[in-house]
Amino acid sequence: MVGAGQLARMTHQAAVALGQSLHVLANSLDEPAALVSPNTSLGSHTDLEALRAFGKSVDVLTFDHEHVPGEHLRTLVAEGIRVHPAPEALVHAQNKLLMRERLADLGVPPFTEVLSVDDAVKFGNEHGWPCVLKSISGGYDGRGVWMLDDPAAAETTVAELLEAGTPLMVEQKVSMRRELAVMVARSPFGQGGTWPVVETVQVNGICVEVLAPAPGLDPDRADAIQDLALRIADRIGLTGVMAVELFDTDDGVVINELATRPHNSGHWTIEGARTSQFEQHLRAVLDYPLGATDQLAPVVVMANVLGAPASPAMGPDERLHHLFARFRDAHVHNYGKQERPGRKIGHVTMLGTDLDDVRRRASLAAHWLSRGEWADGYDIHGG
Amino acid sequence: MVGAGQLARMTHQAAVALGQSLHVLANSLDEPAALVSPNTSLGSHTDLEALRAFGKSVDVLTFDHEHVPGEHLRTLVAEGIRVHPAPEALVHAQNKLLMRERLADLGVPPFTEVLSVDDAVKFGNEHGWPCVLKSISGGYDGRGVWMLDDPAAAETTVAELLEAGTPLMVEQKVSMRRELAVMVARSPFGQGGTWPVVETVQVNGICVEVLAPAPGLDPDRADAIQDLALRIADRIGLTGVMAVELFDTDDGVVINELATRPHNSGHWTIEGARTSQFEQHLRAVLDYPLGATDQLAPVVVMANVLGAPASPAMGPDERLHHLFARFRDAHVHNYGKQERPGRKIGHVTMLGTDLDDVRRRASLAAHWLSRGEWADGYDIHGG
Repeated sequence: MVGAGQLARMTHQAAVALGQSLHVLANSLDEPAALVSPNTSLGSHTDLEALRAFGKSVDVLTFDHEHVPGEHLRTLVAEGIRVHPAPEALVHAQNKLLMRERLADLGVPPFTEVLSVDDAVKFGNEHGWPCVLKSISGGYDGRGVWMLDDPAAAETTVAELLEAGTPLMVEQKVSMRRELAVMVARSPFGQGGTWPVVETVQVNGICVEVLAPAPGLDPDRADAIQDLALRIADRIGLTGVMAVELFDTDDGVVINELATRPHNSGHWTIEGARTSQFEQHLRAVLDYPLGATDQLAPVVVMANVLGAPASPAMGPDERLHHLFARFRDAHVHNYGKQERPGRKIGHVTMLGTDLDDVRRRASLAAHWLSRGEWADGYDIHGG
Repeated sequence: MVGAGQLARMTHQAAVALGQSLHVLANSLDEPAALVSPNTSLGSHTDLEALRAFGKSVDVLTFDHEHVPGEHLRTLVAEGIRVHPAPEALVHAQNKLLMRERLADLGVPPFTEVLSVDDAVKFGNEHGWPCVLKSISGGYDGRGVWMLDDPAAAETTVAELLEAGTPLMVEQKVSMRRELAVMVARSPFGQGGTWPVVETVQVNGICVEVLAPAPGLDPDRADAIQDLALRIADRIGLTGVMAVELFDTDDGVVINELATRPHNSGHWTIEGARTSQFEQHLRAVLDYPLGATDQLAPVVVMANVLGAPASPAMGPDERLHHLFARFRDAHVHNYGKQERPGRKIGHVTMLGTDLDDVRRRASLAAHWLSRGEWADGYDIHGG
């Protein structure tokens, strides 16, 4: 796996059960997956030589992120290295414009490429203000996205970004009720499978909570969304798992982004589904038959643990002690990362039957692990 | 963790979630845990220098097996190394005679030490033939146990073993209905917790199946057994997890053996319980509060995959493919070991509601992974 972040770390855990040991290409030995896998190669994901040497040392090459240059991957494939997902599939997660062009008939918001300030202004005047300017490649967690409120904002922002060489597109701002996501897997053989559709809750462009299944989602609509994900997987020739991020609107869902790898919106599957996204990704890239994706409790909530704005008084180990004392059934995943404000350093998953209760407990747990403060004023000394 | 077998391998998987990376003391780099942990030290568990160096490099020393000499552990403790379980607890898994002396009032079969042939003959004449001769230390998976059918057998066998320097004891052969086991955890703080009581099915002294919960066990009796396990844990000062193996007889249960570590009879907890024995062991030795031990399905069956008597025609990878094609919900754990006849090379866990069905599927899956043959004649080509 190219990249040694938390996705590679959790993929290694799944690999162990299958009798494998994940090899990772890391930038440094203190990255989350490098800390737990004995098979770490050091090198950059943008360095063709490093990719080639790593690719030759493994059975199949796969990815923790979308940032490996497509031309490098095409070179490796031409040299006989097995790459899953293939560069032709991965490009749909790398290039937001290309993805929209390829999936236009499946439901994406109106969009156009922006090669000049005029392109953006004309689009805004036609489709309404504000509209959403996006970097065609490279953005994540809210980066690479700018809201254009009016033609004046468009002129300033677009001019600056084009000047800096950023490839741009603009998209209609969708009037949405909420964000949904669905994970899908597809093997080289062509077998596909999805998990239940989830709701993702974002704050400042960063996912903070995932609710599985998406509350109140009509079953027919959920089926249609799973079918959509399978069709996208088939059309782009996906191998591995992919997140399809969607906007839920009054007129149905529209596609927001694709991520052709394990994804934050699928972390709940580790304890919440019969087969986790990490095991399924391995099964797909190794061309094993896929595993069952049944949800294991009526409600599963995953809450991200984000680095606190200010360093908590209590150390991470002590916070974990108190968390376990309060919540005996919390599933904690600590990524082994240094704490920095807003950084995803872990997550907590809770299972249960009542959405409000499970969501409250997951949120309290994640807030506590982040800050060492109970959001509901609970006193750890029992006073 | 001293030892790098499958128990250390699965403990490493649990450690990753807690933000840890398990350090293992291995005899060689191809042992199951050494294959998946980046923190492997090479050295023998009987070498005091290797143990000392390893112990000084970690926060807490714990064990994959019972074979570290007690005097070495006492030395390490005297030198300030934290050891969990402490040598005073571990000795109850190392010394079968001492264990029975300490737990006599809690229910063990009649027993006595054997220092001469006469000791065994006298015991057999008093308590009935056949009786069971055991090596006081070092046995596992049926090794170190001999059935003495009559005084003549006792004379031959005991004389030979005493001659070879084997410390011996003899025990009444219990007329049992089945074997039961219960896993218990205890932290240095003194918090204790157990999982449901299970039935273990042995063939030729090797555990082949674990049924959770033990079918048809009276709830009051199950409570009493869990209480017994907690009392034993408390009495011996356990830190970590422990398996209490029991004989179920018409007159109640009697204690068979203790294992003061994660144990084969607890593998079902990985997917079958809210907290697995491996995470719980880590929580206990790190003195975290213990996790919930609720069982997650009405029936959980774990079946061991044993190396086949003859090498299967189909390779392990191809066998895994076909297994996943037939059983989408099988949880497979492959230990990364070379296949040898009778060797535990992995296990399969299945969850469900109907005992006969779940047991049949787990057994078929394990038999297939072992031999590449379906015990029910299923045709992988669909013919």
